Amino acid sequence: MKNILIASSSSINNGDFLDYLLPELEIHFKNCNTILFIPYARPGGISHEEYTTKVALAFAKINKNVTGVHEFEDAALAIKNAEGIFTGGGSTFVLVSQLYKNNIVRTLSEAVKNGTPYLGTSAGSNICGLSMQTTNDMPIVYPPSFQTLGLIPFNLNPHYLDPDLNSNHMGETRETRIKEFHAYNSVPVLGLREGSWLDVKGDKITLKGNLTARLFTQNNTPVELESGKDLSFIK
Amino acid sequence: MKNILIASSSSINNGDFLDYLLPELEIHFKNCNTILFIPYARPGGISHEEYTTKVALAFAKINKNVTGVHEFEDAALAIKNAEGIFTGGGSTFVLVSQLYKNNIVRTLSEAVKNGTPYLGTSAGSNICGLSMQTTNDMPIVYPPSFQTLGLIPFNLNPHYLDPDLNSNHMGETRETRIKEFHAYNSVPVLGLREGSWLDVKGDKITLKGNLTARLFTQNNTPVELESGKDLSFIK
Repeated sequence: MKNILIASSSSINNGDFLDYLLPELEIHFKNCNTILFIPYARPGGISHEEYTTKVALAFAKINKNVTGVHEFEDAALAIKNAEGIFTGGGSTFVLVSQLYKNNIVRTLSEAVKNGTPYLGTSAGSNICGLSMQTTNDMPIVYPPSFQTLGLIPFNLNPHYLDPDLNSNHMGETRETRIKEFHAYNSVPVLGLREGSWLDVKGDKITLKGNLTARLFTQNNTPVELESGKDLSFIK
Repeated sequence: MKNILIASSSSINNGDFLDYLLPELEIHFKNCNTILFIPYARPGGISHEEYTTKVALAFAKINKNVTGVHEFEDAALAIKNAEGIFTGGGSTFVLVSQLYKNNIVRTLSEAVKNGTPYLGTSAGSNICGLSMQTTNDMPIVYPPSFQTLGLIPFNLNPHYLDPDLNSNHMGETRETRIKEFHAYNSVPVLGLREGSWLDVKGDKITLKGNLTARLFTQNNTPVELESGKDLSFIK
């Protein structure tokens, strides 16, 4: 049975890395001694080692060990053997490129579908959708495909930001960009604000955190969904 | 001799489409009766016809006719025969995909390098750089390549926005994203604020408009460049 947390952001309000999620993670990873970390998204271009150290410090607060997938010769085997998996944020383009390069897109998807507890934040959440096509990231590397893990039957826009009505800036708002996505694609998109996450248990998807989320579907006006709502209807 | 205007934005401060640039465009396109418009970027997913009509209304103010490249059976021939060319904003991913699909990337690049007056705004400016990898747009379609026209020897970030120092939002700032680009690429990036444009005459590139532009180079602190400055040193 799928057991997944999909978080908009790894921290909120300039708080410490993962701090706001730790009570949730203690429950989510309760049967895991060691978390396998996928550091491929490399926020700000930091190394896999640096990123893994940062994550290990956060998980130490709930007495979990962390190993980076880059430490294993066989990444696919490491994923198959993992007690729990966390993919952190950074560049979705770099992350997806590395998942394909290491040939673990399918292995990762199957492991999580078969029940390995998974946590994604930001880019690590983006890849839970059908494609990475609603990421906010810059296309700094060219991935072999935009298709991602398909753990949920829709796409995500993490760090969702409402339009700033006082702005004179002429660049597109997030809502405009998602509307453009729907000019070419029919996949629903959930705008997940910072501090919100999805709790996936089997086929049930529940919105968590204090805020509403914004659901965009093709040819429809977007709607706000309340925290606690069962989102299994989105497909 | 190259004769190119590369503008950050098609309008500023909610003004009418192209209005702030019209005095400049009157000079730039002085020898053209008709402008060939490339509407492929389809802002908000509008049709090629709608977009071309909007552009024709703006150019009518300086007594220029406009035809859309989509009206021609042979897009490459239309570009070769054009008196002047304008590529408008919208989605850079959609624009680049369509340029490749219609097999006119090389034809367009050669025509402009050979002296056909060109105007780009936003996505139409992004494609003047070496690659589209510093666009702000969402990857709503998958282009066959990120390589673009290479009319200038660096990349652009149009609609450049300074970090909001009062924000608690944890999504990456524009500067962070460009820094990430430089973790994987050595191409310089010019952040071009709304209301700024580049005037390219042969190999000379001049920054125009009232604002400074922000130059990002790999492993260096970004620098602000004054309007009027000769940017030919960037490569």
